Amino acid sequence: MAATLIHNFAKSSGHLSSTQLLVSNIRFFKYLNFSFRICHQINEEVTKCLELKTPLSDHGLQKYTLKTPKGTKDYGPHQMAIREQVFDKIIRCFKRHGAETIDTPVFELKENLTGKYGEDSKLIYDLADQGGEVLSLRYDLTVPFARYLAMNKITSFKRYQIAKVYRRDNPATSRGKYREFYQCDFDIAGQHDLMLPDVECVKIAVEILSDLNLGDFVVKVNHRKILDKIFEVCGVSSDNFRSVCSSVDKLGQCSWEEVKAEMIEEKGLSPKVAERIGIYIQRNGGLDLIEELLNNEDLAGNGTGREGLEAMKLFFKYCEIYGISDKIYFDLSLARGLDYYTGVIYEAALTKLSHRTHFANGELHAVGSVAGGGRYDNLVGMFDSKQRNVPCVGISIGIERIFSIIEARAQVEHEKLRTTETEVFVASAQKKMTEERMKICKELWDAGIKTEQSYKVNPKLLDQLHYCEERFIPLAIIIGETELQKGVVKLRYVMSREEIEIERNKLVQEIGAHIRTFSSIKQT
Amino acid sequence: MAATLIHNFAKSSGHLSSTQLLVSNIRFFKYLNFSFRICHQINEEVTKCLELKTPLSDHGLQKYTLKTPKGTKDYGPHQMAIREQVFDKIIRCFKRHGAETIDTPVFELKENLTGKYGEDSKLIYDLADQGGEVLSLRYDLTVPFARYLAMNKITSFKRYQIAKVYRRDNPATSRGKYREFYQCDFDIAGQHDLMLPDVECVKIAVEILSDLNLGDFVVKVNHRKILDKIFEVCGVSSDNFRSVCSSVDKLGQCSWEEVKAEMIEEKGLSPKVAERIGIYIQRNGGLDLIEELLNNEDLAGNGTGREGLEAMKLFFKYCEIYGISDKIYFDLSLARGLDYYTGVIYEAALTKLSHRTHFANGELHAVGSVAGGGRYDNLVGMFDSKQRNVPCVGISIGIERIFSIIEARAQVEHEKLRTTETEVFVASAQKKMTEERMKICKELWDAGIKTEQSYKVNPKLLDQLHYCEERFIPLAIIIGETELQKGVVKLRYVMSREEIEIERNKLVQEIGAHIRTFSSIKQT
Repeated sequence: MAATLIHNFAKSSGHLSSTQLLVSNIRFFKYLNFSFRICHQINEEVTKCLELKTPLSDHGLQKYTLKTPKGTKDYGPHQMAIREQVFDKIIRCFKRHGAETIDTPVFELKENLTGKYGEDSKLIYDLADQGGEVLSLRYDLTVPFARYLAMNKITSFKRYQIAKVYRRDNPATSRGKYREFYQCDFDIAGQHDLMLPDVECVKIAVEILSDLNLGDFVVKVNHRKILDKIFEVCGVSSDNFRSVCSSVDKLGQCSWEEVKAEMIEEKGLSPKVAERIGIYIQRNGGLDLIEELLNNEDLAGNGTGREGLEAMKLFFKYCEIYGISDKIYFDLSLARGLDYYTGVIYEAALTKLSHRTHFANGELHAVGSVAGGGRYDNLVGMFDSKQRNVPCVGISIGIERIFSIIEARAQVEHEKLRTTETEVFVASAQKKMTEERMKICKELWDAGIKTEQSYKVNPKLLDQLHYCEERFIPLAIIIGETELQKGVVKLRYVMSREEIEIERNKLVQEIGAHIRTFSSIKQT
Repeated sequence: MAATLIHNFAKSSGHLSSTQLLVSNIRFFKYLNFSFRICHQINEEVTKCLELKTPLSDHGLQKYTLKTPKGTKDYGPHQMAIREQVFDKIIRCFKRHGAETIDTPVFELKENLTGKYGEDSKLIYDLADQGGEVLSLRYDLTVPFARYLAMNKITSFKRYQIAKVYRRDNPATSRGKYREFYQCDFDIAGQHDLMLPDVECVKIAVEILSDLNLGDFVVKVNHRKILDKIFEVCGVSSDNFRSVCSSVDKLGQCSWEEVKAEMIEEKGLSPKVAERIGIYIQRNGGLDLIEELLNNEDLAGNGTGREGLEAMKLFFKYCEIYGISDKIYFDLSLARGLDYYTGVIYEAALTKLSHRTHFANGELHAVGSVAGGGRYDNLVGMFDSKQRNVPCVGISIGIERIFSIIEARAQVEHEKLRTTETEVFVASAQKKMTEERMKICKELWDAGIKTEQSYKVNPKLLDQLHYCEERFIPLAIIIGETELQKGVVKLRYVMSREEIEIERNKLVQEIGAHIRTFSSIKQT
C-alpha cells in the first residue's frame, strides 16, 4: 500500500528526474520503517521534493522528464536486431504469396476514421488544432488501406504493410501491449470467389507463426453472419448487434458471468436473451459443430445464418487442402471488437511456448492473440461517393507480443546477437598512425568491406582488440611502423587470436577473399 | 475572380463531394455567362448547395474527403519499390561504417522538444490534450537520439536511424518537400579526437550520393565557431548570434539584399553591421581561403575563431586522405537553421543531374540540399540532470528529395520495375481445377517458392497468362485434365511463351531447379 501511495505521488510530481524519485523513494522507505505514519511521511516527502524543485527553476535550468511517452518505448540495437529478424521472416512470407506493399501517412483526416471502430473510437489519438485540417493518428492499417483503395479507384489488390499504429489504451508493456505498436498486415481486395482469399490469409498466419517457432498455437474462426443470426434468433434487435458483439468479444479476458452482466446492465438485454446467447457462444468444435448447426432450423433455416454456415464448411474444406486444419477450430465466442467485419473472422493464439521464457505459466494466457483478422466487404464503399464496394479480407500479425516472447526467450537463453555487421577493424600498435589507418579504411570502404577504426588519434592496442572481441568483429588489421616499412600489415583472426602477415598492397584483395570464405562457411 | 469566389465558397461548404462541387461549378459558370451578376448568382448557388447538402445528412450518409492530409502522400507499390532500393543502398553504407540502429517513438514529451529548434519550433505538430501527457510529433531524429543517450547514460555510440519526422511547413510536394517525410540519419556520439568522426560523416554522404548516381554534387562546409566569430567581429551582440545565423541560413533561397533587409528590419542590426557580415559570408573557396582567414588578425587572433579555422584545416586534410576533397568547398554563407550545432556544419547539394528528368533546368536549384548535418556537442547535456555532455556529430540524408529525382527520372525513362517477387503462377486450362491448383500452391509455398494463383474458381486461361506477362512472373504452371491423368503438368516460360511438360510428382524439385538457374543468371 505504501508503495502504491508513493507511486501515485511520484506520478503527480512529474517534474523530478527518475533518479531523484528513486533517492526519494529509498529515503522514504527508510523513514517509514514500515510503520503506520504514512500520511505524515508523505507530507514530508512532498515538501522535500518541492524544495528540490524550486532552486532548479530559480537557476533557469529546465528539468526534462527522461522517459518516452506513456505506453511507448525505444528499441535499442539488440531489440532492433531481433525485430529485423522477425520482420524479415514475415515479409518473406508476404512476398511468397505475391503481395505488393504501400505506405500511408501516420495521420489521416479525422473524419476518415470516425464511425469505423465502434466503441474503440475513444482510443484514437487526435492532433491539436493548430489551424488547418482536423487530424488523428491512424488506429490501424485497415481503414487507411480502404481509403487508399477508394481514393485511387483500385478494385483488385494484394498488399502488405508494416507500420506503427496508435491507441490510447491502458498499456501493459510487460506483455507487449503498447500505445504505439507495429502492425504487419496482409490484405486481399477484390471481387473474388468464396473463401479462396480468406483461407489464404489464415494459411499465411499459420506459415508465419510456424516459421517463428514460438510454440503451439490454434486459430479460432467464426463468421459475423452466424453471430448476427444467433443474436437475431436469441431476440436481440438488429441495431444492437454490433454493441452486443463487442460484449461477446470480451469473453476470454472476462468470464461469461461478467460478459452476461455487461449485456444486461450496459447493453439493455433481458437476462433471458443473454442466457440464450450464452448457450450458443460457449460452443466450439470443428466441422462436426458446423454440421450440427446446419441442422438447427432456427439458425440455418434460411438467409444469412445458412450462408455463414455454408461458407464455414467451405472454409474448413480449403483448410484441409492447405494442410492447416489441425490448427483451426470453430469458436462461436470469437467476435472481434471492430465494427467493420462482415464475414469470416479469425484469431490465432498461443497455447504452449516452445522455449523457456521468464513468463510464468499463468502469463501465457495473458499474451493472448498473436494474429487476427477477417473479411470486411463494406469498408471501401464507405469512402466511395457512390458507395461502390471492394470486398476485402486480411490478416494482421500482432508483432509486439511476438517480440516480447522472443525477447524474453533471448534473455533466458543469454543469446548473443550481433548488432553490427563489421567485418574488419583497422587497429594501430603505435602512436601517430591515424593517417595510415584512415588510408586503409578508405580502401576497404571503397571496396564495399564493412570496416571500423578507433576515433582516437592514439588509441591503445588493447582497447582496440577488446572492442573487436566484444563486438564479434571477425578480422583485425594491425599496423605498426616496422610492418609498414617492410610493406606488410598483420591480419588477426579475432576469435582464435592467430595472426598472419599480408602484403600491404594486396590488402583489399586478401581481406575480400577472407570475407568470402567466412560467408560461404556461414551459409553451409 | 469568379473562380476565386466560388473556390472560397466551395471550401466553406466542405460537406459536398468534389464531384458535386464540380457539377455545381460548371452549372455556375453557365449561369454566370461571364456577366456581372456575380453576387446574385453566388447567393443562388449557396441555396442550391445547401439544398444538395440537406438530403445527404437526412439519409445519414457521411461524405468523406478522399485525400491524405496536407503535405503528406501515400506511397504506391511502384514508389515503394524505388524506396526499397534507395533505402537498401543507404543502409548498406551505414552498416559498412559499423553503425547500429535504434528506433524511438513518433511522439515525444513536448517539453523535450522545446528550446531545441530556435525559430523552427513553431513548425512542431502537437497532439491534442486528451488527458495525460503533453505530446508532440518528433521534428527530427537528432533530439530523440540525444534524449535516448541521456536517458540510457550512453557515452559512446555510432547509430543510424531511418524514420519519418513531422514539420508544419509550407509543403512543395512537386520537389519533394513534405510535412511528413523520412530522415536517414547517421550519428557518432562520444568523446573522440578532433575531426575524425566529423569527416567520416561527410565521407558517408559522398559514398551514398555517388552510389545513388543522381548527378554531380558538392558538399559545402562551414564552422559555427567561425560564423560566431564573424558575427562578433562585425558587431553583433552574442545573444543575437543564433537569430542572425538563421537569417544567414536563408542565403541561397533568398538574395543577399533580402537577407540583409531581414537582418536590419527584423533582427535589429544596423546597416553597417549587416554590410560587414555580407563581406564575409559571400566568400567561399578551399584551403586557400582558410589560410587567408588564418592570417586575418580579427578572426584568427585568438580564441574560438582560430579554433574553428584550425579545425577546418584539419578537416580538409582528412578529406584529402579519404579521397573526397574534390567534392568539398568551404562556404562562409552556410549557416544551417537549427540552434543546436556547435562545430563543423555541412550540406550536400546537387549541381547537375546525371539523367534526364522532367525537372526544368531552372528547378534543379529548387531541389536544393540533399544531405546535411554537423556537430552538436551540447544537446545531450540539455537532457542530463548534471548537464554531462556527450559530443555528437551526424549526417542526415534528405531522402524525399532524392525520391522525387529518381521518380522523375523513372517517369522519363519509362523504367519497368517489378513490384512483386512472384516466381510461379499456377494456372488452370479448364474449369473445376480449384482444388488441384490449391494443392500445387501449397506444395510450392511450403517449399519456399513465391507462388500466386487466381482467386476465381473458374478463371480464363488467357486472363491468367495475361496477368503473368503484365507482372513479369517468369514461370507458369498450367494444369488440365488430360495432363493430370498422364501425371504431368505444363511449365511455361512466360517471356518466351515456350512450354514443356514436367512430372507432377517432381514439380517442386523441377521448379526449384529452374528458379536457382534464373537467379544465378541474374547475379552474373
